[in-house]
Amino acid sequence: MSRFWSAVVGELTPYVPGEQPKIARLTKLNTNESPYPPSPRVLAAIRDELGEDGTSLRLYPDPNAEQLKQTLARLYQVAPEQVFVGNGSDEVLAHVFMGLLKHERPILFPDITYSFYPVYCGLYGVRYENVPLGEHFEVRAEDYLRDNGGIIIANPNAPTGRLLGLDAIERIVAGNPDSVVVIDEAYVDFGGESAIGLVARHANLLVVHTMSKSRSLAGLRVGYAIGQAALIEGLERIKNSFNSYPLDRLAQVGARAALEDRAWFDACRRKVMDSRDALVGRLEGLGFEVLPSAANFVFARHPRHDGERLAAALRARNILVRHFRLPRIDQFLRITIGTEEQCLALVENLNEILQQA
Amino acid sequence: MSRFWSAVVGELTPYVPGEQPKIARLTKLNTNESPYPPSPRVLAAIRDELGEDGTSLRLYPDPNAEQLKQTLARLYQVAPEQVFVGNGSDEVLAHVFMGLLKHERPILFPDITYSFYPVYCGLYGVRYENVPLGEHFEVRAEDYLRDNGGIIIANPNAPTGRLLGLDAIERIVAGNPDSVVVIDEAYVDFGGESAIGLVARHANLLVVHTMSKSRSLAGLRVGYAIGQAALIEGLERIKNSFNSYPLDRLAQVGARAALEDRAWFDACRRKVMDSRDALVGRLEGLGFEVLPSAANFVFARHPRHDGERLAAALRARNILVRHFRLPRIDQFLRITIGTEEQCLALVENLNEILQQA
Repeated sequence: MSRFWSAVVGELTPYVPGEQPKIARLTKLNTNESPYPPSPRVLAAIRDELGEDGTSLRLYPDPNAEQLKQTLARLYQVAPEQVFVGNGSDEVLAHVFMGLLKHERPILFPDITYSFYPVYCGLYGVRYENVPLGEHFEVRAEDYLRDNGGIIIANPNAPTGRLLGLDAIERIVAGNPDSVVVIDEAYVDFGGESAIGLVARHANLLVVHTMSKSRSLAGLRVGYAIGQAALIEGLERIKNSFNSYPLDRLAQVGARAALEDRAWFDACRRKVMDSRDALVGRLEGLGFEVLPSAANFVFARHPRHDGERLAAALRARNILVRHFRLPRIDQFLRITIGTEEQCLALVENLNEILQQA
Repeated sequence: MSRFWSAVVGELTPYVPGEQPKIARLTKLNTNESPYPPSPRVLAAIRDELGEDGTSLRLYPDPNAEQLKQTLARLYQVAPEQVFVGNGSDEVLAHVFMGLLKHERPILFPDITYSFYPVYCGLYGVRYENVPLGEHFEVRAEDYLRDNGGIIIANPNAPTGRLLGLDAIERIVAGNPDSVVVIDEAYVDFGGESAIGLVARHANLLVVHTMSKSRSLAGLRVGYAIGQAALIEGLERIKNSFNSYPLDRLAQVGARAALEDRAWFDACRRKVMDSRDALVGRLEGLGFEVLPSAANFVFARHPRHDGERLAAALRARNILVRHFRLPRIDQFLRITIGTEEQCLALVENLNEILQQA
């Protein structure tokens, strides 16, 4: 605590991202990245932007990322004024909390969800109430039909991977016409149906996506939000009071290229989903209980083996998975779906660990 | 105004950046970019990071940008814990306003300066008082030796280009031991001496730099701040509550490469300074009054020609300069130093405009 800090700084509990290891030999199944490279078109677009001598880098990027917004608008059949882009969906979410979710009444989100949400609340002084997930870690739509200042739900939820159906999402959105309802669909491309199709009908719905997972672009930092123009304008006002140029030139062209390669996108997510289904079967074969996942990770616990110890034993074998020392979920491992080879190595090592214990 | 917006949104007056024209033929002297490409090492580093298939882009970047911080620490002979990096200096400044400048007493900055400062104050509810520049648009150190909650000074100042000497900066810093004093040195490489050398002696000093001007990397979005560890920790706490990964992989490696090419950096800024000195002489030859500039732009007015009209006449000839419709400076043009050829074209066109008027 420094006397030079603004009052809020001392009260913050910053978010802690999954470990980004410096050792290259590690099998990294801890931060839900894609095991596959991005579309070759991404590389071509970035090389094209760099040109012979990189001279375009001397010029500011388009502050409004208009071409990227147009690409997204075409993809999702919305108007460009219904699209907001940011430096990763984390930045998009930060502006959402500041610009759309700070009201007198507390906002609602599940007790077990993306752990950045309460951090944003701390940063911007947003009041919130946690809504407990059901017994099987499911979001129950009826729990969100009560007085609130806004709602945010990750769907599929993290770190559980569980999906809420679109009908239930629409019940929540329609049941809260005076609140902004944010659906954070970071993982929706791995088995869910996006709520973007509901935007035309609901002025209070905002859907947030990232390009870090299904588009294999965690290293490029691009996220976006889709909603009716008034919500997007609120976000633009925040963004333009924060940083005129959040997306650099290479990120803008790389993101467009990735969005335009539908075949690559479909092939990668299909491979991930197939590997996930196979992995679930193998983990269950080892005695794990695995929550139904519509994401590029699974959330699993073993009835006779402590979660934290299992994570540590895997770490000792150079395999990283994520473990959360949090109420209700401290027995679970969150395991990112890797390549087939990585999934098999994980299962083999888990098998050995269980036998030795 | 939407009922879904948080209260602050309706009160914002977002920053308006200089025009980023879509027409390639324009001579762009309006946003203080470098007329020279970045170091060839930048291109090589980005290509190396992309590799054969861009597969590194699937992985998150280092959230702490440790290698970039080490490069900066070596360059400025400080410790890595004294370095903060962000997605352009605009993002760094945003975190500074939120994390270090929000206190009960109002902060101070000049009446004529970077127009994003009052925007940040609006965003975060930071109270401020403007301190009028002197008659010749100079910052007067003695005006900042009074009660305040913090101070921010652009040095050289924008859009005037005027430099305050390091002795005067240190008087302000030493005279305000209980306030954070931020020196925004976006343009210091074009003729000023950085206050970074004073950081070791002053716990309340933070110096902010951008790589958008003297490093020719406006398109890559990298800025940084240097100060004692407690100030940097305050900024890290904000950053880690906002976005874990603000700098993408390509920006991190590109920025390092640019910082390591000292010869390129020196050659580019030398060319800009030489062109500036020549341009000042030619503008004075046309009857302009030009403020003494230590930046990569000049601020000039003509005693017999209206500033806004001159800017419009240049625009009609496909030359963009910046004009601010603001008290005290509405007769001035802010002209970025381009290549020699661009500077000559500017002077030639101005000469014709003056003769026709």
